Amino acid sequence: MRFRSVFRASLANIKTSRSRCFRRSFSRLQPQSDRPSFGIAFDIDGVILRGRTPVGGSPQALRRLYRDDGTLKIPFLFLTNGGGVPESKRASELSQLLGIEISPQQVVQGHSPFKEVVNRYENELIVAVGKGEPAAVMSEYGFKKVLSIDEYASYFKDIDPLSQYKTWRIKQTYDENSSMELHPRYDVYSDRVKAAFVVSDPVDWGRDIQVLCDILRYGGLPGRDKGHQPPIYFASDDLEYQAVFPAERLGMGAFRIALEGIFNSVSSSPLEYTSFGKPNPFVFKNAEVILTQLVSDIYHIQDNMDGGTGHEFSTLYMIGDNPKVDTNGAMKAGHPWFSMLTRTGVFRGKDNDSQFPADLARLLLSKDALAENLAPIRRVVVRLRTGHETISTL
Amino acid sequence: MRFRSVFRASLANIKTSRSRCFRRSFSRLQPQSDRPSFGIAFDIDGVILRGRTPVGGSPQALRRLYRDDGTLKIPFLFLTNGGGVPESKRASELSQLLGIEISPQQVVQGHSPFKEVVNRYENELIVAVGKGEPAAVMSEYGFKKVLSIDEYASYFKDIDPLSQYKTWRIKQTYDENSSMELHPRYDVYSDRVKAAFVVSDPVDWGRDIQVLCDILRYGGLPGRDKGHQPPIYFASDDLEYQAVFPAERLGMGAFRIALEGIFNSVSSSPLEYTSFGKPNPFVFKNAEVILTQLVSDIYHIQDNMDGGTGHEFSTLYMIGDNPKVDTNGAMKAGHPWFSMLTRTGVFRGKDNDSQFPADLARLLLSKDALAENLAPIRRVVVRLRTGHETISTL
Repeated sequence: MRFRSVFRASLANIKTSRSRCFRRSFSRLQPQSDRPSFGIAFDIDGVILRGRTPVGGSPQALRRLYRDDGTLKIPFLFLTNGGGVPESKRASELSQLLGIEISPQQVVQGHSPFKEVVNRYENELIVAVGKGEPAAVMSEYGFKKVLSIDEYASYFKDIDPLSQYKTWRIKQTYDENSSMELHPRYDVYSDRVKAAFVVSDPVDWGRDIQVLCDILRYGGLPGRDKGHQPPIYFASDDLEYQAVFPAERLGMGAFRIALEGIFNSVSSSPLEYTSFGKPNPFVFKNAEVILTQLVSDIYHIQDNMDGGTGHEFSTLYMIGDNPKVDTNGAMKAGHPWFSMLTRTGVFRGKDNDSQFPADLARLLLSKDALAENLAPIRRVVVRLRTGHETISTL
Repeated sequence: MRFRSVFRASLANIKTSRSRCFRRSFSRLQPQSDRPSFGIAFDIDGVILRGRTPVGGSPQALRRLYRDDGTLKIPFLFLTNGGGVPESKRASELSQLLGIEISPQQVVQGHSPFKEVVNRYENELIVAVGKGEPAAVMSEYGFKKVLSIDEYASYFKDIDPLSQYKTWRIKQTYDENSSMELHPRYDVYSDRVKAAFVVSDPVDWGRDIQVLCDILRYGGLPGRDKGHQPPIYFASDDLEYQAVFPAERLGMGAFRIALEGIFNSVSSSPLEYTSFGKPNPFVFKNAEVILTQLVSDIYHIQDNMDGGTGHEFSTLYMIGDNPKVDTNGAMKAGHPWFSMLTRTGVFRGKDNDSQFPADLARLLLSKDALAENLAPIRRVVVRLRTGHETISTL
């Protein structure tokens, strides 16, 4: 993966995509001295929400990051490996669930980096895999010729030998039942799939692994002569994540392991793939760019000639529940990232994770070391971790 | 796996399980000299049937193995790694599709060996995985406390985080939609699953891999403290098989690779499992016992004191389409097995498979070497392979 080039692309994208609504709600004139020297990236699942239920006092904690007039006070965003719906839709959902106004720019999902390869596949046939609306996500990024794997598979009779044992009604935006009668929107029988994107957690693993193996083994045309493997991109590589069930559930990383193990057994050459999402350092670089941009939007900072805002964070807090993904990612990203580990999700240890120790745990052990600008955040975090401690004003 | 003990158990089972119908239709008095010196084991998928459609002239070819009065002339059976329904039901289906009377004893499926471990789990809670009626199959074998993984999973709320994206209608013998309201038939919340049996190709790979990982990691109780891995048995280990779709489809071996890869990533100790099915030599030993028993049934041979029939085959023909499974298995089993490879399924080569060369191909290259007792079979096979050559009388 080309971190640097993608990173540059992100900056450009963000500058051109600031929403009016965002400017309206967050704009405010303020002297440079008052600009916050820190920003926050929150993981969602197991930190802010479990399923659709807020964790501990997360809504109250997040409200402390806004002024009384509803404008943003502390630049923060949500940095999740999850996804399946466009950032705009996810922002609306979060606003509703948490009772605060979240802008699409504040939602960075596992598949958000996919928009960086639009130029490469804009007019090529691509397949989008996963729960929710994977095709809608890719269309919103600008891909013009995208089919969900559910629709794509429906055009190939008998491609799934187990379909007779399922009556799938995957909640998609098209009617799967009638798709067999429909004429394909694209000539899927001669037009090769140029790339596959696993946007969110796949629903029908068996069918998806089968169809992806068909696409990847046969050069983009299932059942034809073997051909060169088209690229496949994964939005994340989470082996497990915390959902509502007491024990962790298998994530996209587990699906990747399954696909890779099978593909390498049936193919002469090993699977080539690209994974995004935390702990990939690029994701944190990208988040830093967005947080810097948030400060500019809040305080009306004009961009410099070089495209930068001149604003530098002393600290960026990554607040997550998964040492392997969140802490590890912040560690890899280095300064100014500072990792904070909650006990409300994947991590269940007493003090700190042994393999990927978070910065926060160490700070809690020596309170004197608490920096002033960390104090309010620490209270937010402690609130998230214990679900009890009341929050003093920032 | 303990081949020898299982093999002995099989013999006992078969002797006690001869059906009346079988005796009635196949019984006939005949001098010992006329007893056939050979028997045949046919693979089903890609040899006799493709989906539910007969391959080439397979029904006519099979009819040549019966006398005009409908009694069996040549002892033969079906040796398949497939399954999902009780042998009795499969025999009826085959009889209907092929227009000949097949007895349950002539149907050896991948999961048939599971009956050999009934004594170990007869009254223990076990889970049966796969398409069709996996629980019914295990119940017919004598397991008294068996739940299909579909029913088992339905008792654990949120065990499948993707269930909201599916609306299940798996064709099972119980109503899954109402099962959440039902009280479990067994105390699945305190009663540990003692073993898991993958009876046939799993339908919902993601859910099944998740629930199996839960059962195997947590000592038979999902979401509880980690415990010793219960045994897991696979009916076969086919990586791919030929179905209706032009390219091969992923089989139970692919599912095993997926489960093993993921389990080994989330567990501290590697997955321990047992696979049955071809090319396991035990399967061929077991088939030989059944074929010998068929001769006894046809010719009313009394068993010796040692439980044997005294009848010895000079040749047993394994007619299959999959070199890795059928030819390889016959080679491993050794005398009197003789492998014949058809071109109607997995194998698409010109002459013979390079890795697992079948005996038949070599014989066809030198016709003089054709033994008299092979001639009629060769014609049957050639008919199966070409779908053109007419069949002379046996």
